[in-house]
Amino acid sequence: MADLASGEEGDFFALLAEKQTMLTKDGKPYYRVTFRDARRDCSFPIWSDAPLADVCRDQWVVGEFYKVRALYRETNYGPQLDIRKIRPVEPADEADGFSPQMCQPSSRFDTQEMFADLVAIAEEGIDEGPLRTLTVGLLEEHRELLLTWPAATRNHHAFAGGYLEHVRNVSRHAYYLAQRYAELYPDMTPPLRVDVAVAGAILHDIGKLRELRVTPSGGEYTAAGNLIGHILQGRDMVREAAAELEEPLDEETLLRLEHVIVSHQRLPEWGSPKPPMTPEALIVHFADDCDAKYQMMLTILGDDPSEGPVTGRRNVLGQAVYRGGE
Amino acid sequence: MADLASGEEGDFFALLAEKQTMLTKDGKPYYRVTFRDARRDCSFPIWSDAPLADVCRDQWVVGEFYKVRALYRETNYGPQLDIRKIRPVEPADEADGFSPQMCQPSSRFDTQEMFADLVAIAEEGIDEGPLRTLTVGLLEEHRELLLTWPAATRNHHAFAGGYLEHVRNVSRHAYYLAQRYAELYPDMTPPLRVDVAVAGAILHDIGKLRELRVTPSGGEYTAAGNLIGHILQGRDMVREAAAELEEPLDEETLLRLEHVIVSHQRLPEWGSPKPPMTPEALIVHFADDCDAKYQMMLTILGDDPSEGPVTGRRNVLGQAVYRGGE
Amino acid sequence: MADLASGEEGDFFALLAEKQTMLTKDGKPYYRVTFRDARRDCSFPIWSDAPLADVCRDQWVVGEFYKVRALYRETNYGPQLDIRKIRPVEPADEADGFSPQMCQPSSRFDTQEMFADLVAIAEEGIDEGPLRTLTVGLLEEHRELLLTWPAATRNHHAFAGGYLEHVRNVSRHAYYLAQRYAELYPDMTPPLRVDVAVAGAILHDIGKLRELRVTPSGGEYTAAGNLIGHILQGRDMVREAAAELEEPLDEETLLRLEHVIVSHQRLPEWGSPKPPMTPEALIVHFADDCDAKYQMMLTILGDDPSEGPVTGRRNVLGQAVYRGGE
Amino acid sequence: MADLASGEEGDFFALLAEKQTMLTKDGKPYYRVTFRDARRDCSFPIWSDAPLADVCRDQWVVGEFYKVRALYRETNYGPQLDIRKIRPVEPADEADGFSPQMCQPSSRFDTQEMFADLVAIAEEGIDEGPLRTLTVGLLEEHRELLLTWPAATRNHHAFAGGYLEHVRNVSRHAYYLAQRYAELYPDMTPPLRVDVAVAGAILHDIGKLRELRVTPSGGEYTAAGNLIGHILQGRDMVREAAAELEEPLDEETLLRLEHVIVSHQRLPEWGSPKPPMTPEALIVHFADDCDAKYQMMLTILGDDPSEGPVTGRRNVLGQAVYRGGE
Amino acid sequence: MADLASGEEGDFFALLAEKQTMLTKDGKPYYRVTFRDARRDCSFPIWSDAPLADVCRDQWVVGEFYKVRALYRETNYGPQLDIRKIRPVEPADEADGFSPQMCQPSSRFDTQEMFADLVAIAEEGIDEGPLRTLTVGLLEEHRELLLTWPAATRNHHAFAGGYLEHVRNVSRHAYYLAQRYAELYPDMTPPLRVDVAVAGAILHDIGKLRELRVTPSGGEYTAAGNLIGHILQGRDMVREAAAELEEPLDEETLLRLEHVIVSHQRLPEWGSPKPPMTPEALIVHFADDCDAKYQMMLTILGDDPSEGPVTGRRNVLGQAVYRGGE
Amino acid sequence: MADLASGEEGDFFALLAEKQTMLTKDGKPYYRVTFRDARRDCSFPIWSDAPLADVCRDQWVVGEFYKVRALYRETNYGPQLDIRKIRPVEPADEADGFSPQMCQPSSRFDTQEMFADLVAIAEEGIDEGPLRTLTVGLLEEHRELLLTWPAATRNHHAFAGGYLEHVRNVSRHAYYLAQRYAELYPDMTPPLRVDVAVAGAILHDIGKLRELRVTPSGGEYTAAGNLIGHILQGRDMVREAAAELEEPLDEETLLRLEHVIVSHQRLPEWGSPKPPMTPEALIVHFADDCDAKYQMMLTILGDDPSEGPVTGRRNVLGQAVYRGGE
Repeated sequence: MADLASGEEGDFFALLAEKQTMLTKDGKPYYRVTFRDARRDCSFPIWSDAPLADVCRDQWVVGEFYKVRALYRETNYGPQLDIRKIRPVEPADEADGFSPQMCQPSSRFDTQEMFADLVAIAEEGIDEGPLRTLTVGLLEEHRELLLTWPAATRNHHAFAGGYLEHVRNVSRHAYYLAQRYAELYPDMTPPLRVDVAVAGAILHDIGKLRELRVTPSGGEYTAAGNLIGHILQGRDMVREAAAELEEPLDEETLLRLEHVIVSHQRLPEWGSPKPPMTPEALIVHFADDCDAKYQMMLTILGDDPSEGPVTGRRNVLGQAVYRGGE
Repeated sequence: MADLASGEEGDFFALLAEKQTMLTKDGKPYYRVTFRDARRDCSFPIWSDAPLADVCRDQWVVGEFYKVRALYRETNYGPQLDIRKIRPVEPADEADGFSPQMCQPSSRFDTQEMFADLVAIAEEGIDEGPLRTLTVGLLEEHRELLLTWPAATRNHHAFAGGYLEHVRNVSRHAYYLAQRYAELYPDMTPPLRVDVAVAGAILHDIGKLRELRVTPSGGEYTAAGNLIGHILQGRDMVREAAAELEEPLDEETLLRLEHVIVSHQRLPEWGSPKPPMTPEALIVHFADDCDAKYQMMLTILGDDPSEGPVTGRRNVLGQAVYRGGE
Repeated sequence: MADLASGEEGDFFALLAEKQTMLTKDGKPYYRVTFRDARRDCSFPIWSDAPLADVCRDQWVVGEFYKVRALYRETNYGPQLDIRKIRPVEPADEADGFSPQMCQPSSRFDTQEMFADLVAIAEEGIDEGPLRTLTVGLLEEHRELLLTWPAATRNHHAFAGGYLEHVRNVSRHAYYLAQRYAELYPDMTPPLRVDVAVAGAILHDIGKLRELRVTPSGGEYTAAGNLIGHILQGRDMVREAAAELEEPLDEETLLRLEHVIVSHQRLPEWGSPKPPMTPEALIVHFADDCDAKYQMMLTILGDDPSEGPVTGRRNVLGQAVYRGGE
Repeated sequence: MADLASGEEGDFFALLAEKQTMLTKDGKPYYRVTFRDARRDCSFPIWSDAPLADVCRDQWVVGEFYKVRALYRETNYGPQLDIRKIRPVEPADEADGFSPQMCQPSSRFDTQEMFADLVAIAEEGIDEGPLRTLTVGLLEEHRELLLTWPAATRNHHAFAGGYLEHVRNVSRHAYYLAQRYAELYPDMTPPLRVDVAVAGAILHDIGKLRELRVTPSGGEYTAAGNLIGHILQGRDMVREAAAELEEPLDEETLLRLEHVIVSHQRLPEWGSPKPPMTPEALIVHFADDCDAKYQMMLTILGDDPSEGPVTGRRNVLGQAVYRGGE
Repeated sequence: MADLASGEEGDFFALLAEKQTMLTKDGKPYYRVTFRDARRDCSFPIWSDAPLADVCRDQWVVGEFYKVRALYRETNYGPQLDIRKIRPVEPADEADGFSPQMCQPSSRFDTQEMFADLVAIAEEGIDEGPLRTLTVGLLEEHRELLLTWPAATRNHHAFAGGYLEHVRNVSRHAYYLAQRYAELYPDMTPPLRVDVAVAGAILHDIGKLRELRVTPSGGEYTAAGNLIGHILQGRDMVREAAAELEEPLDEETLLRLEHVIVSHQRLPEWGSPKPPMTPEALIVHFADDCDAKYQMMLTILGDDPSEGPVTGRRNVLGQAVYRGGE
Repeated sequence: MADLASGEEGDFFALLAEKQTMLTKDGKPYYRVTFRDARRDCSFPIWSDAPLADVCRDQWVVGEFYKVRALYRETNYGPQLDIRKIRPVEPADEADGFSPQMCQPSSRFDTQEMFADLVAIAEEGIDEGPLRTLTVGLLEEHRELLLTWPAATRNHHAFAGGYLEHVRNVSRHAYYLAQRYAELYPDMTPPLRVDVAVAGAILHDIGKLRELRVTPSGGEYTAAGNLIGHILQGRDMVREAAAELEEPLDEETLLRLEHVIVSHQRLPEWGSPKPPMTPEALIVHFADDCDAKYQMMLTILGDDPSEGPVTGRRNVLGQAVYRGGE
């Protein structure tokens, strides 16, 4: 679907991500459906007098995949489909190249490689011992989920692999900054703990595995995610893993690591009950904030529909971004 | 000491709470010492040429108790002592009525009775079962500490038993409010959990046992208290206790209880990462805030040294309090 | 109307609360009407080509009551009526059980009983004398209005009797808290005035009688309500009543009572020019805030249309509320 | 006193504005006294072994006037006096030019003339009728107090006549702005009420007569000033005066006038429960704020003891002010 | 167009200010067009099956003027036109009274007169010399633009001449206030610079000539306007002009003038990196803020469509404005 | 001086950084002097009856260097000197190793090397052309000042070379981050300008050369620094340099560079009138903020005099920093 130009007709596979019952002004029911593939969402109405109305009502199931032939059009109401033919995906379609992954937006980077990269950062930046065991252990334990997790429920890095992409960037930044400061100011007392900064960067958002639940239509908050939040839940995961270690982690290292997680959003109104009180926490905070804001700017530049030298202000940053060209 | 009027001389027992080395303007060393009993602090200098200067330097030990004969005077520099005689407390002094408790500011209420009252509230407000077991179990497990704990490191309920006094008031308030709302609006869906409100009130500050360490000169923050804070530490204690229960607590009840603790200060800038999102959390927040502010007003009315219809504004509330009489 | 299930047809009495002239996209006029009974509002269009169009335009009058036969349907645009028959209420309908009260949302509690309860609190909590005379006098003087007044113009306790329901709860809470603190800390100087707390709780919102005007379609602000506000107007009412007393109220008691009203919202941005500077004002503030927030949570739990473990955030509290069940 | 250069000796009259008992570091009592004349305050110690110690302790009375011969010196502790001779003022001193006014800081402008100017503004800007009667009536009724009142208890327009000086400026500004806008936009609906702007400017701070009490050592807040505040107290005075008028003021005019007073500080955190909602209130707010800030800047430029192109930041504006010269 | 009552038909000249392609719910394209004359905007759809659909699509050009015969109607969707006849303006129409100015909203004041008034203020308030040369020079250099410039891109003084109207008011206010304070406090050190206040008032918004670009459909921000802003751009213009002066401006005067521009919005969140630190800057800030807010109130009173004693709150001030009449 | 332990006597060179006239409580004048070398400040009194009193008064000159023999003691009033011998530095002292630099706190890094490093970053990160010419040109033009400049007037990187140390770190960070993002997201539109990020990082604080003036006792703000500020002054320097370029810089590149400077502090309350609206500005902001905060934490850990697991809160970050060890 994402390869079609406006006005072009074609065959493609897509996920039925949403199907809502609506009512016209004169009281007639209709459906609003959303088809999705890796790079595009199409939401449009199926009117009650349309040929597909009955099939839509009775047979289309949210979360299932469909083979579709349709005319794609870009309109003032967003991208639309005029569906010519539609049927559920069949086993034989895999031979034609269908896979569920092709119907979900996902990171531009290979998730296996990003995962391997994260493990590599842990092995470069943390000496062998309980801290590395804990860090790599948590990654391995949750490998399956991490390979698919989004970084958030919206703001468009709500894509599969978004978690790994963000955490990999943050970890690389934090490792670079920590190494640099350790070299520049070797006599700081107590010394900067490069290993804690690296472990903290890798694990800073680990609580999102408990805060969110991933469904066909995207991530959503669990009950505990709502009432407790990923900062506290991530610290729980670290403490639980630390309690399982054969060779125990010394208390101060664990405390420094917990503190990186607790303080990584810096301000109480952003969710951190404590500000960064250690150099490691400071570095992870900046690495995280910088990557989050950079991704937002990237998304805004890609998505903003307005014209002119700057984008609109109704976006996740709440401000205009410069496009250049003037 | 607290019974002496200004200008009166007498014998009394007192704790040496602080002893600091100072330097006069012309470079001569002297000591600033603080003697304390249950209701009064006296801080004053021992000049290097005073008769007691050598004894003070060589023999007086912070945290030990002394029998003192002194003239007590109230001055512009605060209450002062002209010490006539002083010696460490001896075993025989107990026959004269000495006990360490008499030298520490402490709650006006009997701590054993307050503890018993807290257990009684738990037994009235929570049906038999895992939630009551957890709540009463945590009280019993920490009974020794709870009997002496202050509610905070300053603001003058930094007295022994201050923790119990505050928590008992909060629990009574919360129990009253919860019962009342349960009666008034019995069809709220889901219903208000009176038992969770009571357990949450009793345990809302339990993390202070890990956040603080109590020393002769008062409470001070532990490292983890500084970097993590009592809200998260109190939730840890509840989760650890829940994991030990023979009959397990159901997940939703535990989540509601954790949420009461996490949200009891309501605003992120006051330390709560989440606002109250359940009726129980709302009730405990108000009960806690009301008692904390009432205690502050009580203390300000008792301590403010200024005259006139209102107190000064340099106090823990940052505002004037009305004294009446005009 | 409130007893009909979606898809059911029935006869009922209802108030025509609003009738607005609208225009379709192609320029044809139509009406948007709102029928209301005690527990439900239905707003829907009467198109210009509908059978009832002429009657609606020419005969339906806002503020009048109608007997209606209609099919009730719940739709994505909210609850709707397909009206089969409609005529103004006739005197004979009272024999059938019609009364104007049945067509207005109102408190679940009997207003006469709530009023009596308020008077009882005044008589329990305030000794005989000018303060009780003033308090009970203001209640009696405005009895007729108080029995029907809403607590606010929106947020859904905009129902008849909402004022009494809120003030009764606040007064009970404040009386309980004041009694408890008076017992706990009898030597506070000056002592807590339980009577002032009770009188202040009962009268804290009395200015709403001047701030609002009640119309068939709900409460609306008067000019003085907009430019001056109920806090100042309520204090005016108390001062005017005090000036009429035969046995005069002493100056300090009046000042303390005025101050409770002036400071009951605590923060300047919530409308209070002064923070609570007396123990009585502090108690009334907490009792008021607790009940207001509890009512909001109750309403949100009852009204929020979303699904899942928490409600949405677009509500009067600006946050999600936990529903449980997960 | 104010005419003496540092190091100069002379005779002068002065008010004893304060006398505080203090204690030296070694516990000896002494007095800290403040002598004041129209343009200078001198605060300095009278040590217990000084020749004047006994006279000071036994005979000097706060609020009385003295004839003093002293050496005046400017020091790092501020201006000081070495008193050679001192005696209470005698009736005969008036022949020598003594008057109590010469010993109090006061406005540079003649208070009688400022008062007359205020009345003149009222008569120019308000047509004959109840609004003018009310405005001029309030001025005349409080003439004696107004002639001596300060504008505030500190910030250095705490001088006699400060109230009149500030209100006169505000009223002139407001009258100018109101006339100008009335001319520029004659068709505004409803029209700007120049008379209300003028009356509101003249009376905007009238509540300070109830908020403050003036003593020899300056203004201080009354109990009601603390608990209620001049904004509400000023509105009371206007409403009381309006109730006394023979020819009544129409309701809307009174409401507009009350609103000017209620909203003149614009923001709730500055004490106004409502923002300016009428053009008259807007104009008076700006006239008031502009004069208050201008006076602060004037005072800072006159008083700041630092050197360099800008003043320090520890002043009532909380910012540096440019001195020029660089 | 602006002279037609609702339901009246007439001939008039109008500008086609906007033409947007839209799509109906069932996917049919249509146009939304805006016709504008000096006092009215009409935005309405041209459906695809309307008689004018083809002409609209193929021939109507944004920014061109048309002679129109139409029926004007005020509806719930705003003012609408039923166009009977329409053709582009022809040269001969000028004989009939057409001029482009009549089709743009513009100030009620003659722009040439306002410009002359500004120059006059400069000549009254600034002595002959480099400061006057600079000020009048900048006005003359940009005369053509200034005569047409709006004061902002929205908030309805987005009309031609809005810039001059606002700046003229600000300059008159600032000149009055500066003269008054110079007379009242002649001994302020350093003295108030009336000439700098006047020059600063005249030039405070001059950067808007670089921040905005004016198009037929209104003002819009340039790239540099977005990224740098008019405060910095206006200071650039003053510095560039100062560098061109034959007789140079002394450094302190230039610095004071730059500072007036830099600080005129007072608060950093309103765009001023520095608060007013000179008396001139303070005066210009108040004159500017007062006129901006007054204009907003004037516009709200003119435009708000609601009924009742106060306007709605969804306006540029974010608050209700009193209409009176109750 | 910095090498002496408390109680040790030695010979050293030091700068007389301050000399203030003070007055004792009984009115005797004395001096408070500050001697400084590269790593230590000693401030202490010279009493009027001390042997050095006359020499101090008559001969010691602020800003001159002295050879001192003294006993160094650390006291509760801070480090003190008992001066045994003192004389001004003589030419011959240079043979003994004296140089003025040894008496000023300065960066631990060699300033020539840091300067060369900055030029190297410019040459690596910016292709040959006008942007590199402008950047390197500004560095070379101000080389002499840059080698000595502090980064700020206080917060302890008020040392010579502090400017270069901070800007070098920021530039390295920004170059790293920009390269990394350019590789990761090569198809961003418009692409990230690595060269603009590097030039912006190098020049972001260049305005400090105009904002500050460096004196023997440290940096202080110029008049224009106070009234305009380094953000605007730095942009001026870039624009002036751009106007001098032989091969002109294209407009968009200049605008992007100016914007990096204007927005580098991100929030208006920190001095930036615009937030970062380009990816380059975002990166420079984070690099700058991270280094500033890291330096503050480093300084706090080095300087805080308190004991225990965390530092005090009265520091430039306004929070405690963890020391570890518990």
